[in-house]
Amino acid sequence: MIHTFVAYVENKPGVLNRVSSLFRRRAYNIESLAVGPAHLPGISRMTIEVEAATEDIAHQIAANLYKLVDVLHVDDLTNRKSVKRALALVKIDTSNPQVRSEIIQIASIFKQAEIVDAAPSSLILEIVGYEDTVERFIRMLEPYRILEMQRTGVVGMLRGSEPVSEGLAALEEQQ
Amino acid sequence: MIHTFVAYVENKPGVLNRVSSLFRRRAYNIESLAVGPAHLPGISRMTIEVEAATEDIAHQIAANLYKLVDVLHVDDLTNRKSVKRALALVKIDTSNPQVRSEIIQIASIFKQAEIVDAAPSSLILEIVGYEDTVERFIRMLEPYRILEMQRTGVVGMLRGSEPVSEGLAALEEQQ
Repeated sequence: MIHTFVAYVENKPGVLNRVSSLFRRRAYNIESLAVGPAHLPGISRMTIEVEAATEDIAHQIAANLYKLVDVLHVDDLTNRKSVKRALALVKIDTSNPQVRSEIIQIASIFKQAEIVDAAPSSLILEIVGYEDTVERFIRMLEPYRILEMQRTGVVGMLRGSEPVSEGLAALEEQQ
Repeated sequence: MIHTFVAYVENKPGVLNRVSSLFRRRAYNIESLAVGPAHLPGISRMTIEVEAATEDIAHQIAANLYKLVDVLHVDDLTNRKSVKRALALVKIDTSNPQVRSEIIQIASIFKQAEIVDAAPSSLILEIVGYEDTVERFIRMLEPYRILEMQRTGVVGMLRGSEPVSEGLAALEEQQ
């Protein structure tokens, strides 16, 4: 089962390397990773999706993340009400005008798809949404000639006002 | 100056660790990283933004990436016509209804912003766009109480049909 962890880390050189070393060493399989500045200065926030066969392994992953230098706070969003989103860019060969019109139609049926570049023989499409929306969109494009594709990691957050969990609240007080 | 590199890598455990080790060892400062499956089976595509003081250093970074095991192809998108996009989720404290209505107004003036969760005392906003759009949006939210923020790495792609650069075309033929 894929678990979604959120980790707050010090924004220091080497911290990404520490996290990726942990996952390599323990042979945890990272499905997706997003990292960017958090709302607190000097702190980054990561969303990490990782396959964990059992709940025990999931607890172990969280505990091991916590042990790393520069990791300040870890949450497991799995089985909790959360918002998860991802973004993908897909470039399609549309040198055939019939293909181009089919691609434009596909883009029009996905509310969160958009054409972000148009050239005589290719289009770049953007899709934003829950992972399964992104997957369904890409699956619809697979019969065509995909020239390039780039996906972001998944970003996740609990719905509603919780947390600021206790760990995070403590971080905020230190600021 | 921030350079944007695209790297095609074998989708194998440890490849992210190899890339992040290189950046740590050489003290290159990663501004942003996105990694996900490419359009070719078994291959991942990374977009890496990194500060390079000179063109020489940028060339060095590309050359060092190339040297890594499992790195198949590297492109530098800098100074070329490209599409770059990123996504952010921002959770705002809206326990004050006046604040809530201000936040809804801010969301309404950004074409690519959307409210993706609403609770009695908080809203989660999504923003998608060029980096500077995401930056401007977050700057407008800074006067409010941000509870959480998560950003993806930037994803980038050359406009138009090029490349499939020579290196990438060679990769495709091997499939």
